[in-house]
Formats: sequence, structure tokens, C-alpha cells
Amino acid sequence: MSLLALDLGGTKLASAVFSEEGEILCAEKQSLDKRTGEQVGQMITQQVQALIKKYGGTEMPVQAVGVSVPGISYHEAGTVWAPNIEGWTQYPLLQEIRSAAPGLPVIIDSDRACSILGEAWKGAAQACTDAIFIAVGTGIGAGILTGGKILRGAHDIAGCIGWMALEKPYRDHFKDCGCFESSASGEGIPKLARAILEEEQEYQGRLRNLDPAIFTAADVFTAYNEGDALAGKTLQVCVELWGMAAANLVSLFNPQKIIFGGGIFGPAASLLPHIRTEAAKWAQPVGMQMASMEASRLGSQACLYGAALLALQNKNR
Amino acid sequence: MSLLALDLGGTKLASAVFSEEGEILCAEKQSLDKRTGEQVGQMITQQVQALIKKYGGTEMPVQAVGVSVPGISYHEAGTVWAPNIEGWTQYPLLQEIRSAAPGLPVIIDSDRACSILGEAWKGAAQACTDAIFIAVGTGIGAGILTGGKILRGAHDIAGCIGWMALEKPYRDHFKDCGCFESSASGEGIPKLARAILEEEQEYQGRLRNLDPAIFTAADVFTAYNEGDALAGKTLQVCVELWGMAAANLVSLFNPQKIIFGGGIFGPAASLLPHIRTEAAKWAQPVGMQMASMEASRLGSQACLYGAALLALQNKNR
Repeated sequence: MSLLALDLGGTKLASAVFSEEGEILCAEKQSLDKRTGEQVGQMITQQVQALIKKYGGTEMPVQAVGVSVPGISYHEAGTVWAPNIEGWTQYPLLQEIRSAAPGLPVIIDSDRACSILGEAWKGAAQACTDAIFIAVGTGIGAGILTGGKILRGAHDIAGCIGWMALEKPYRDHFKDCGCFESSASGEGIPKLARAILEEEQEYQGRLRNLDPAIFTAADVFTAYNEGDALAGKTLQVCVELWGMAAANLVSLFNPQKIIFGGGIFGPAASLLPHIRTEAAKWAQPVGMQMASMEASRLGSQACLYGAALLALQNKNR
Repeated sequence: MSLLALDLGGTKLASAVFSEEGEILCAEKQSLDKRTGEQVGQMITQQVQALIKKYGGTEMPVQAVGVSVPGISYHEAGTVWAPNIEGWTQYPLLQEIRSAAPGLPVIIDSDRACSILGEAWKGAAQACTDAIFIAVGTGIGAGILTGGKILRGAHDIAGCIGWMALEKPYRDHFKDCGCFESSASGEGIPKLARAILEEEQEYQGRLRNLDPAIFTAADVFTAYNEGDALAGKTLQVCVELWGMAAANLVSLFNPQKIIFGGGIFGPAASLLPHIRTEAAKWAQPVGMQMASMEASRLGSQACLYGAALLALQNKNR
């Protein structure tokens, strides 16, 4: 028997079939190619049908489906809100997948929840009851495991740590994505670098001549690895913010582990010792000693593993 | 049948006998009078014995005991760490109370947990599954209810929100109690006012002539109510910090309610509309709309009610 896991992102759909032991039997990745609304739903249901069919005649037929979505999964309604997929405000994804997978249990959860569940199953948070996955990609979110359970909040929107207030005074550019995310995310890092560029008129390094329209976080990390001073200054600000955020999670949740993942960790993983040093200045000291900080072990597959675990846990319902 | 609840503070012991419906049958308050270590333990066990005896011959004998402590209750060991009671590092309180109350179930929890449990039972958080009590007294801590359960963390020290990092850069005076608590607590408010006094040499109001050694948060509130400008400036900083902290709790936990209590709320309760306005600037906007912010309804008795609820829930174990 096998488990079908799907991880929908803002621009791609990853899917995989897992054994119950957590081994990947096959995995695929498809670009959304600017699909919107129901087209994305169709792409998912076609993939569900194709993989169920592929394993249907084997010794490992699919017995349950788990799906990770980039937004909010409203469990009672079975609908999904995904800000980066046009038309997905209350999208009836659960019903659509159920129609495509008759007789199989289907479960949907947010990428935040799936990321920490994946790490708890097969990654850096194995054997943890209290652990947090900080996903730093285009934006910033967190999957929070506390007392062995996913923290959901009253309306399934807990873990929005990109909105964490870390620096007074309030600035207008916090409005759209929050204070923390405005500087320390994949979209924030190049903005922060450009703001520092404007202040540092004497700097004539590699970042000075980049076209602002195509300047990305990857450019900042490339420059940093070449010893560029402005990139160093930019990432020093990020280290401070990542450290403060991690400290706040330690003080509030008393976790065993904080796991940094998403596209930025990745290249920022080498900064983890500095992030820990920064966090230790701010956090409740007893809790800090008990909390380790690590990079994701599953990388871009954390949510896929989490979706498979959800399918496994849900297979008899 | 009745429930015996005790609320140990840093300087006093409150105790009460409750009906199962949550009505207070009798209540007492005693000063610790500089007792330390085992003397505090003896005071508690004597009070337990006295109240059990008092109700022993009535129709309402005590059937369970619940205790709130100002620190950490280690559930597995049955010990208590309380920083403001000398000698209580791993104090065996559970065993002592059990000896004083033979045959009765006894349960101990932190004042953070008891505060939100009390409000959930008989105060501002009734019918809430997700609510947070911010206790602003001498220090700052939080009791967090999520999905109907108390958030404990891996080692029973979740909710240390006084350590929340809210302002860069790091300053040395954050070291002992955390960034948030260093300014926005009962001890922090007069320190903050004195720091502002030093900057504002032209100010000649009421706070200028107070002896720094006896200057308290109450003096700042008295001056504020008289329209004092420096007190206004001090509390404006606190409103900003309380708002940022509440915003972070909204973004992380998606609660239905945030309840402000402790000695400072009290007088700061009139500032709640300003705190909400400040929080709304920073918090995840959907979560913010769903979260109400209120003052404690149980005031200084929140922990006592929480301890009684714990006794009630534990009475058949």
C-alpha cells in the first residue's frame, strides 16, 4: 500500500508516491505555467488520477491522499485560501480531489503545518513533541508543533510569523507583509540591500551596478560569498532579525528545536551559528539552553513528506 | 463537595474554598512576611489543613486541591521553581501538600496557566478555545490556551513573553528580564519614566521631585491622570510595546481573545483602545479582525479561579 502526497506552491506542483515507511517511490514536479483558479484545481486532480492509476495495478496501490497548500486550509469547510493562486479564496479543493479519488481518504493542510510534520517524520525534528519550522522563502511563515500537535489557532491561521513586530518605529512598508518579512525574506533581502545602497553612496561593489528590477536575494548571497561589504551589512541585519524572531519563539513556545528552511536556508544555513548567538542575547535563558537550531534536512521536500505523513495518519478515517 | 484553591504570589498567599459551580465560599489572604524556603511550604500546608478541617464537618467537604505558583511547575517531578521565593529551585511542593491532604487529589500549575484557566472558566475568556492572558505585574508573563489546552512547551516554561524582543538594538538592561519586561512592566515603567526624565531636562512636573528610590508605576499613573506630559510620554512608549506584543500573539496564535491582567491592568485598562489601535498596525490583518482585546474580569483572583478549575478537573484522578 502507498501514500500519494502533493505539494502545491505558488508556481509549481510537486507530487510523490511514498511507501508507508516514508520512502519515495516516485516524484514529479510540474510548473503551474500561469494557470489560475480552476485550472490549478484541474492540474491537481489530473495528477491525482494519473498517480492512482499508475500504482493501481501494482502491489502498492495508493490508499490515501495528502495535500500541502500555500495558504490556509479551512478544515471544516474543506476549502483553501491561497493568496498566490488567482481565484483561490474559498476554493473547494477537498471536494474536487475526493471526486478524483473515489473511496480514498483525502486530507489537506497548510504548507506551514506540512513543513514541520515532514521534519518531525523524517527530518530534523524526529522524536520532537515541541518544534518549529521557520520557512523563509518569498515570504516567511512557521509550522508549529506543540505538545505533539500542530498549532492551528481559532481559525487555522496561526504561525504567521512574517508579521512579527521586531523594530520600532512602525514603517509604511510593513503594511503589506509585516515587519519581519519586509526585510528578512526572499523578497525583503534585495529591498533591504537597495535601501542600504542608497545610504552608502561610497560603496562601488558588485551590487551597485545591478539592475534594481532583477536584483534578487541570490545576488546578495553571491556577493556575500565574495566578501562584499554591503552584502555583509545586509545579511547582518537579517541575522539580527532571524535571531530576534527565533528568540521570541523560544520564549513563547519553549521548543526542543527550531528548524530553518525554505529557499533562503539554502544559502543562509551557514549563518546559523550567528543567528543562534543573536537569539541567545534576547531569549528567556533557560529555554534558550534547551532549544537547538538547525537547518531543514528535507529541504524543498519538507512539505511533501508532511503531506505524506498526513495521508498515513488519515488512511483509516 | 468543595474545591480548595491556593494562589501563591511572591509576597502573599491567597486561598479560597469554591463550590463546584465556581462560587467562592470563603477566601483569605496572608502575607508571606519574608518567609523563605520551607517556611513558605509550611504556611501552605497549614492553610490546606485548616481549610480542609473547616469544611470537614459540613455538607461541602473539600474533595480536591489546586495550587497556583509564581514560577515553573514541573509536572513529572512534582517540584516548583519560584524565583521570588528564596530556596525554591526544585521545591517538593506536591509531596508536601499530599501529606497534608491525605486521600485528596492535588494539582499544581504555574500562575501563567492558572490565570487563563480562571478567565476561561468564569472570566473574560468563557467559551474560548484559543485565548491568551497577558499578566503585567512586577514582571510580565502569559498564559496561553490553544485548541482548548494550556500551552506548556517541552519543559513547562512556555509563555515567557517578558523576554519578547521588540526593539533593536539590544541593550544591556534587557539581560535580566528581557526587552519587553524591561520597559512595560510594573518594575519597568518607573525605570522608563526616569530614563525619559533624564532626557527631558526642561520638564518640572510632579515626577521630577519624586525620590528615585520610592518612585513606582503607581506614581506614573497618578501623574498621567493629572495630565502630566512626562507620564503621558512614558505610557505612550508602553502602549506601543503592549500593542506590538499583542500583535505578535495575534500573528502567532490566531486567538479569539487577548486578556490584559495583573496589577498594571488595573490602571492601564483605560489604555486598551490605544493598545488595540497600535496592535492593528503590526498584526496579521485577518487574525487581528478576529481577536478581541479585553481587561481581565477576575482581577487579582484570576489565578485562584484557575487553581479551583484545575482541582475540579482533577478531582476524580
